[in-house]
Amino acid sequence: MSFISEGDYVLLYFDERRKWLVKATTDKEFHTHKGVIRFGSIMGKPYGSIVKSSLNQDFWVLRPTTCDFIMSVERPTQIIYPKDAGIIILKLGLKPGALVVEAGTGSGALTLAMANAVKPDGHVYSYEVRPEFIKTASRNLRKAGVLDYVSLKSADAKLGFEEKNIDAVMIDLGDPWKVVSKAYRCLKGGAPIASFSPTFNQIEKTVGAMKRSNFLDLETFELLLREIRVDKGKTRPVTFMVGHTGYLTFAKKALKK
Amino acid sequence: MSFISEGDYVLLYFDERRKWLVKATTDKEFHTHKGVIRFGSIMGKPYGSIVKSSLNQDFWVLRPTTCDFIMSVERPTQIIYPKDAGIIILKLGLKPGALVVEAGTGSGALTLAMANAVKPDGHVYSYEVRPEFIKTASRNLRKAGVLDYVSLKSADAKLGFEEKNIDAVMIDLGDPWKVVSKAYRCLKGGAPIASFSPTFNQIEKTVGAMKRSNFLDLETFELLLREIRVDKGKTRPVTFMVGHTGYLTFAKKALKK
Amino acid sequence: MSFISEGDYVLLYFDERRKWLVKATTDKEFHTHKGVIRFGSIMGKPYGSIVKSSLNQDFWVLRPTTCDFIMSVERPTQIIYPKDAGIIILKLGLKPGALVVEAGTGSGALTLAMANAVKPDGHVYSYEVRPEFIKTASRNLRKAGVLDYVSLKSADAKLGFEEKNIDAVMIDLGDPWKVVSKAYRCLKGGAPIASFSPTFNQIEKTVGAMKRSNFLDLETFELLLREIRVDKGKTRPVTFMVGHTGYLTFAKKALKK
Amino acid sequence: MSFISEGDYVLLYFDERRKWLVKATTDKEFHTHKGVIRFGSIMGKPYGSIVKSSLNQDFWVLRPTTCDFIMSVERPTQIIYPKDAGIIILKLGLKPGALVVEAGTGSGALTLAMANAVKPDGHVYSYEVRPEFIKTASRNLRKAGVLDYVSLKSADAKLGFEEKNIDAVMIDLGDPWKVVSKAYRCLKGGAPIASFSPTFNQIEKTVGAMKRSNFLDLETFELLLREIRVDKGKTRPVTFMVGHTGYLTFAKKALKK
Repeated sequence: MSFISEGDYVLLYFDERRKWLVKATTDKEFHTHKGVIRFGSIMGKPYGSIVKSSLNQDFWVLRPTTCDFIMSVERPTQIIYPKDAGIIILKLGLKPGALVVEAGTGSGALTLAMANAVKPDGHVYSYEVRPEFIKTASRNLRKAGVLDYVSLKSADAKLGFEEKNIDAVMIDLGDPWKVVSKAYRCLKGGAPIASFSPTFNQIEKTVGAMKRSNFLDLETFELLLREIRVDKGKTRPVTFMVGHTGYLTFAKKALKK
Repeated sequence: MSFISEGDYVLLYFDERRKWLVKATTDKEFHTHKGVIRFGSIMGKPYGSIVKSSLNQDFWVLRPTTCDFIMSVERPTQIIYPKDAGIIILKLGLKPGALVVEAGTGSGALTLAMANAVKPDGHVYSYEVRPEFIKTASRNLRKAGVLDYVSLKSADAKLGFEEKNIDAVMIDLGDPWKVVSKAYRCLKGGAPIASFSPTFNQIEKTVGAMKRSNFLDLETFELLLREIRVDKGKTRPVTFMVGHTGYLTFAKKALKK
Repeated sequence: MSFISEGDYVLLYFDERRKWLVKATTDKEFHTHKGVIRFGSIMGKPYGSIVKSSLNQDFWVLRPTTCDFIMSVERPTQIIYPKDAGIIILKLGLKPGALVVEAGTGSGALTLAMANAVKPDGHVYSYEVRPEFIKTASRNLRKAGVLDYVSLKSADAKLGFEEKNIDAVMIDLGDPWKVVSKAYRCLKGGAPIASFSPTFNQIEKTVGAMKRSNFLDLETFELLLREIRVDKGKTRPVTFMVGHTGYLTFAKKALKK
Repeated sequence: MSFISEGDYVLLYFDERRKWLVKATTDKEFHTHKGVIRFGSIMGKPYGSIVKSSLNQDFWVLRPTTCDFIMSVERPTQIIYPKDAGIIILKLGLKPGALVVEAGTGSGALTLAMANAVKPDGHVYSYEVRPEFIKTASRNLRKAGVLDYVSLKSADAKLGFEEKNIDAVMIDLGDPWKVVSKAYRCLKGGAPIASFSPTFNQIEKTVGAMKRSNFLDLETFELLLREIRVDKGKTRPVTFMVGHTGYLTFAKKALKK
């Protein structure tokens, strides 16, 4: 709610480069180069409050957003970034109550964003073949408070999905074209599908598979995020940027004639 | 649900350039260059089905996503596009149940995306001084089925917001810096704010106002959407693109010492 | 030199959108929506002077740059734009005295830029199979005053180049990979090659061919030009931009072991 | 010419990340992690040849291009990159014989590119107030073999230029607007000016000064270079890129009425 409670995940903020998503617990300490933080003193206080470190430095206790949770997942894999997750959710039409199938859980970054979009009545069925990623994703989803809205399935998406009449399918695999026809079968008529891939070769194959599987309304694009350093009298784009994450492909299921 | 019912908004699809978001009603006709569409014949059929036009052309009846609703709003004003709406929702941490204040309803494109993200228990309080835009936005929100989750307020955001303890504030005005201190007052501690502006000069002033109002964790960026024409053996970015919509600024409310 | 002479090509400028590269001749008229221009009155006057139209409007007579000549070529084909031509010239190390082979003259836009870079002692040997393009290119090169520094060769580059010991090769063909081994033969040891192509598939094949032909120091990139509308207090990138022209690949010839 | 001679600067190439622009001299050694290179054995051999290191590794001796010289300048300052230098040269209409004034020599990277474009009959007059930069630039220009075509002037461009009737002016200063009226005076009628600046604030001021000084045909843009990793079956843009160098402004001198 509005007040910091035992066990809440908070965004502990010192400055732009020193901020952490941490669990606020009375009996644990959080160590930083600017001193040790003890959360006991701010339990019950409002978010946005200052907590002093052992070195008498000011830290702020802010509310983490979905974006903060995405950016702080444990990530043995490349994750889908918020810029891409945001448009995926809108293009898949995810809303509270929607049922989604995800092929390729990975670290669960996109899974948590989708779970937040469909909860409390919707659900994400997420397939992952690598058991160690299911463990990581599970921890990340629990931390974000959305594990109840996700079924992590230790199964190979290429063998097909158990679900039927699904509102949307998201594919984040190295060979997305191999699950396109399976995705077709589990989707409701007219419903959307999305796929994320870093290379041109992948999108050629994926789009080809989607056309063959009777998907329509195809679209492929990429989003480039360019950060601006806003500084009175010397505002400018920052020197270095992430130049590529991946291409997004979207389509909708047409029924066969 | 899965079947087309009287009064549903559907995405009527002929090809990539000829698709429309229309209301499926038994007694009305929809005229296209490829013939007249009558929806009576497909009532009760599943989404994804084909409807024949009077010229015997195939049209598909697909499910509109949030994105399709955004792109089909009546728009006397520049709208916030899905690429920007998606990241705004994640950076504002919008989830079912959240309460949001929006300064500048405009055509209601972003309003409908936010309403979809917070419904059914959340709410969007959207301020707009121009009465004709409230009318347009109202029609756009009704069409998208989210009017119940939005209060359109005919009032000047610069005079302040009536709401208190709000989870997030979104500003889409020509002079966002003038409402930043008002936004501060209506927000919960530690909660996020966002602002959208096309010019460098606006972001300099907005960021200055946010710093003075005790907002922290500031970030400004833009998203560039680059469409790819995927065609086996000749895949390439498309020749023309939208080179600029606007800059996004995000921050969080810190309490005063 | 500094004064306008009979037959000079000048940049006739009314405003940002109304400017033309025209030949200043005493006995001809140039018709615009802002009146007719007669150049007789400004012969012998300095560049930068005003000429009045028949409707008493001010037009300026400016000096055309290489860029203006490129942008005003007659173009039955897609041309290589100045942003790409500029880096090609630097990456190919073109300097006065250099000998260059070009495969694919097209409209001659890049040819004229290269000729300007290597004249008066250097030379461009440009191959083109389509006779009508040779005619167009010839007119464009004459207009830019560089026809003497170019040999337009009506021949198929895929059959090989007659020249030997060439300083640089530029390929602008739909199937560049087919001339890479021919280019290798006509180049000096250690010398650079460049290729321009719009699709991913082309660059994959071209880079493959270059590696097989013993080229080293390979690099592929694209340049995006983003125009800024500078207007005091409301400066911003322009809304629409050219999102893609083509990819540039560069390499250097290594001798075989 | 085609053969490696004593004192030539060569591009010594091991692989994409290990390449150096070095002077080939018989009596000096060049040390790398892959062994020591002695150039004596390849004097008189053609460029493109292999030289073995003391660890029996293959290194290639390639021809350096203008681009290689730019990228290897000693640089106590931020330099103007080839992508920007290329378009500056075309927009300024630089050709053999042209006379150019440059305000702000810096490390001399752009100076060397311009000198290469105007030599042997043209000349670059380059102003720099910081004596240590004149020394660095001097070394960089000598290395590139173009010192004879450049006058390095230890003087403040803001006090005006001594040259008259100049073909083009290039400004690379932190406060370009302060030299715009001086640049106007030294330019020929109708001739082009260019300015490079990293911030929005600078371009607003510069464009304002150019308009007040009677420059026309104004244009401001930036170039983004996006590198592509071409790898058969997995071609994609590279993950990190330089997101910003600076904005380029161009205009032409109109005579006063």
